[in-house]
Amino acid sequence: METKIAVLASGAGSNFKALVEGDTGPGRVDILLTDNENAGALELAAELGVESKYLYPGKYRTRFGIKEEKIWAEFLLDRGVGLVCLAGLMRIIKGPLLDAFQGRMMNIHPSLLPAFPGLDAQGQALNYGVKIAGCTVHYVDSGTDTGPIILQNSVPVFESDQRDSLAERILVKEHRIYSQAVKAHCLGRAVYSRVVR
Amino acid sequence: METKIAVLASGAGSNFKALVEGDTGPGRVDILLTDNENAGALELAAELGVESKYLYPGKYRTRFGIKEEKIWAEFLLDRGVGLVCLAGLMRIIKGPLLDAFQGRMMNIHPSLLPAFPGLDAQGQALNYGVKIAGCTVHYVDSGTDTGPIILQNSVPVFESDQRDSLAERILVKEHRIYSQAVKAHCLGRAVYSRVVR
Repeated sequence: METKIAVLASGAGSNFKALVEGDTGPGRVDILLTDNENAGALELAAELGVESKYLYPGKYRTRFGIKEEKIWAEFLLDRGVGLVCLAGLMRIIKGPLLDAFQGRMMNIHPSLLPAFPGLDAQGQALNYGVKIAGCTVHYVDSGTDTGPIILQNSVPVFESDQRDSLAERILVKEHRIYSQAVKAHCLGRAVYSRVVR
Repeated sequence: METKIAVLASGAGSNFKALVEGDTGPGRVDILLTDNENAGALELAAELGVESKYLYPGKYRTRFGIKEEKIWAEFLLDRGVGLVCLAGLMRIIKGPLLDAFQGRMMNIHPSLLPAFPGLDAQGQALNYGVKIAGCTVHYVDSGTDTGPIILQNSVPVFESDQRDSLAERILVKEHRIYSQAVKAHCLGRAVYSRVVR
């Protein structure tokens, strides 16, 4: 059975594109939803022939308004969305949206979690001096990049690397594992299990 | 010019063996030093034809006595040791020994640091559910597994993995990167740089 996927993005949407074009098995990207009227992902959606929609997120900068988060959740549920994929959504999800899609919402993060959660993971990795970096697809829970891991992939860090060269190398792997993780989920092969900490 | 290496171990000493048998460039394992009269590494040293010595570490269980740590440092300095390699030394180094060998003391840790510092890194990794694990050779600073990274290597984690199967897979990589890191250091190719945090 097909799973309807909603991709939530605030920016350019390169991972959105990867999900539309990649092999997601019985999952199919149904709509792009954004909290940013100027998101590059909106243009990309038009090019890719995917429906897209801007929904007002509320007056806060880094989280949803309570009322607005309910509206987002209801919109997605009404549409029959079975899986929510965050792809550069610059907003914390903690309320009704998380409750509605717990275990059915995933995110991609440009580090080998649990190392370097939060903003600018690639810069954090370079500053720390790691020799192996990577990316992680994980289910979303109420923490920052703390949810159960579905897939990871690694890349080498070179001495000559700047933030952008490292980010670019990681992004290639992001595009690959995001659709793989979505496929695994939609086939029932990804397990949502609590993380012991 | 040859660099005299002292390996400090409390246990079986498999990384000690890897350093003796591996290609460490201009570095040569000069002595095995242990805080444990029953360390398996003592037998191993005899088999490998490497000098070994037990030195009393003081009455504490997880750190050196202040007087004893001075004695360890003086012993190593008097012997002309240029590089100290920790290989399963079950004791924190914070005092005179660290001061004497700062930037000339390295450790190997069975995780992709900064993830999973401290005890049972492999068990921590399994509990967290990471899909990629690994090991790290780093210079020792006063923190727990926080020093500048020299080399890392990664391994996949399989769904069927138990702690021991994962630890074994990581250990193979440990043996490989420890001698590589020592070689890089002894050739002046490893950089001791402060970590930004």
